[in-house]
Amino acid sequence: MRMYDIIHKKRDGGALTKEEIRFFVEGYTKGEIPDYQVSALLMAIFLNKMDRRETVDLTEAVMHSGDTVDLSSINGLKVDKHSTGGVGDKTTILLGPMVAACGVPVAKMSGRGLGHTGGTLDKLESIGGFMVEVSSEDFIRQVNEVGLAVIGQSKNIAPADKKLYGLRDVTATVDDVSLIAASVMSKKLAAGSDAIVLDVKVGSGAFVKTIDGAIELGQIMVDIGDGMGRAVIAVITGMDQPLGYAVGNALEVKEAIATLRGEGPQDLRELCLRLGGMMVYLGGKAKTPEEGSELVLDALRSGAAFEKLKAFVAAQGGDVSQIESPELLPGAKIIEPVLSLKSGHVAHIQSDEVGISATILGAGRETLESVIDHGAGIVLVKKVGDAVKQGEVLAYLHTNSDQRLEEARERLLGAYEIQAEDVPVPKLIHAIVRKDGVVRY
Amino acid sequence: MRMYDIIHKKRDGGALTKEEIRFFVEGYTKGEIPDYQVSALLMAIFLNKMDRRETVDLTEAVMHSGDTVDLSSINGLKVDKHSTGGVGDKTTILLGPMVAACGVPVAKMSGRGLGHTGGTLDKLESIGGFMVEVSSEDFIRQVNEVGLAVIGQSKNIAPADKKLYGLRDVTATVDDVSLIAASVMSKKLAAGSDAIVLDVKVGSGAFVKTIDGAIELGQIMVDIGDGMGRAVIAVITGMDQPLGYAVGNALEVKEAIATLRGEGPQDLRELCLRLGGMMVYLGGKAKTPEEGSELVLDALRSGAAFEKLKAFVAAQGGDVSQIESPELLPGAKIIEPVLSLKSGHVAHIQSDEVGISATILGAGRETLESVIDHGAGIVLVKKVGDAVKQGEVLAYLHTNSDQRLEEARERLLGAYEIQAEDVPVPKLIHAIVRKDGVVRY
Repeated sequence: MRMYDIIHKKRDGGALTKEEIRFFVEGYTKGEIPDYQVSALLMAIFLNKMDRRETVDLTEAVMHSGDTVDLSSINGLKVDKHSTGGVGDKTTILLGPMVAACGVPVAKMSGRGLGHTGGTLDKLESIGGFMVEVSSEDFIRQVNEVGLAVIGQSKNIAPADKKLYGLRDVTATVDDVSLIAASVMSKKLAAGSDAIVLDVKVGSGAFVKTIDGAIELGQIMVDIGDGMGRAVIAVITGMDQPLGYAVGNALEVKEAIATLRGEGPQDLRELCLRLGGMMVYLGGKAKTPEEGSELVLDALRSGAAFEKLKAFVAAQGGDVSQIESPELLPGAKIIEPVLSLKSGHVAHIQSDEVGISATILGAGRETLESVIDHGAGIVLVKKVGDAVKQGEVLAYLHTNSDQRLEEARERLLGAYEIQAEDVPVPKLIHAIVRKDGVVRY
Repeated sequence: MRMYDIIHKKRDGGALTKEEIRFFVEGYTKGEIPDYQVSALLMAIFLNKMDRRETVDLTEAVMHSGDTVDLSSINGLKVDKHSTGGVGDKTTILLGPMVAACGVPVAKMSGRGLGHTGGTLDKLESIGGFMVEVSSEDFIRQVNEVGLAVIGQSKNIAPADKKLYGLRDVTATVDDVSLIAASVMSKKLAAGSDAIVLDVKVGSGAFVKTIDGAIELGQIMVDIGDGMGRAVIAVITGMDQPLGYAVGNALEVKEAIATLRGEGPQDLRELCLRLGGMMVYLGGKAKTPEEGSELVLDALRSGAAFEKLKAFVAAQGGDVSQIESPELLPGAKIIEPVLSLKSGHVAHIQSDEVGISATILGAGRETLESVIDHGAGIVLVKKVGDAVKQGEVLAYLHTNSDQRLEEARERLLGAYEIQAEDVPVPKLIHAIVRKDGVVRY
């Protein structure tokens, strides 16, 4: 088999066989096939598309390019959750405890932030002492004992995806549904859970710009899971603005704690109840996602979810007093209001621009070597649908260094689109995609 | 300007600007843009096409990626000739002397063979003492004195083409008309002649498989020349079999000598008279290509062309006695007949397979480091249209090593397609493309 012939076939619109797909993924992972041949193939795939069967085969090949995690020694149906990328998305910190409190084990591997998106590991590390590097044995023991563990992704999970994603990123071949689906699902499947709830973001700030496109992506991912014996539900959610108010590591942990205590932003709470309900349903602890949502709400109201968060933080070496008294979490010496330049209604908040602004303040990594300021970030005051007057506070910038404050302010102001006409509060959930069909909202 | 945006634009079907094309060609030549981005762009160009204007801009950018040759100190209109690739194509060795004998100066840079195609330089070097490395001054002096010089292509002629071609070759992006046209024309234009006759091969063994495709390629190249003030004629010729009977370096020189002496194969002679007539016409020495062909025929009949070959060989240090007595040229110790396995009519001879067979015998390079056996090669006996009986000789293998004789025989037998029905002698010239239109034959 020759890579040249595989490129040639896809160039001419042919469907690649399982063997051809495995050949190129394995060869690329081992460094036997050069970048320039793979990028030509990726462009041919982008323009001539892959069908469902090819996409499933690609996912399987990428999944098997490295280690796969065996969670069979954890009792019960393990349920994972993945978001296709968001700003201010602290759902994992909430969902883990909520779902675990309902008796569904969550054995989760997470990533770090890069560019404008934050990473769950960085957020958790803003808690003093919290350790994300845990051995496989301790990871499994903790899930069996506490019901929940969140650790760093092993280096050898889907290494082909890491290489392919890096190449797609510089060759304008990122936003293809088959390639996105294979990238997401290969990692999630390798991570070993029995079921997965996917939060597929749609909108100007997301990979997928239209609801139909997001539903298509969701369907492919549900199909892939089904083809490999894993139950998958995809929830299509809007990304017209960041989720909740807080963007930045300790700020987001504080918001997660507030939400687990029954306070916190309405959109974040609602999304977590919906996603959590599905996770509990897929974990076999409820007959319907709706019943699951009720169980999750109970866990929230009873304080069981908050207790689970504390147990989880304690198990991974974190300082529980910071969870009980969030003011002990890292803070910012400088808190600067950003004032609106005009009056009107907030029509849109460009999430990636908010993420970049937070990164400029120190909350994120501009390069892999950047050191994070856990206390830095942004707290939004006005969200889409809100009325705002000129001179009113849109948001607060939190930072420990005033060096790039004006740059961050400019960026944040640019993220806000304010118009004269009334704006309705945007829909949070656009559709739910399951094996047996799509429900639009 | 960013390479990413250029890839993105072409991926989405946009037309690249002159500046964008220059940016990527210059950046790639300098090594500032990596292979993997260029191969993604090449695939996007292949699938979404370039228009005429983009193709002209690409040609110009590639042409200016290195040196351009100044032939202005040579008197008269210099005419060049290029073939898009053939097996057994020794036309340069014949056309140079024929056209120079008619008073049209030929200042030609040629290449070496690689893979299944031979190179004019390798063929000329089978003549004892012949030197292809000549200084620019000597090159120009020789053309002014003898009317003809053929030398190795300067390393810095269109270096971008060398890099791009190498990449296209391994990423299945060779056979696109815009990319082929830009590759051919950038080098020919950089080589400095005033006019160019292009021999565009069509058929199963050529880049272009259909006559319409070849005409399209010819038109683009004529347009490119016109856009840059050079007269170009493209002749669309069949490649259903090798040209002439001889394939291999000294064997081809011998066939060229025979043809200049009035013997030699009919197809080779006819093609040279037609191409030569056009070169003489473009060189301003005839009012029509037909009148040019008559002048070339005169030069052939009078022996003037043969005398010109001797003068040219002498000027470049070659042993003229080998031209006068071709049996002194390198030969082969082993000459093996290849017998037909069945009776019928020769329907097709796959040229590239004949070329590979000759390479196996030692006539060509399998890698850039291979050493050529100038005496090795193949002499065909049966050509398309000929009747053949089982056990009759199809061709003779010439070699100085019996190591891979059977492999070469297998390959050559496989190149012959023999059928029961009568086969007409194939058409040599399918069409002629000029600025003012296309004539089909």
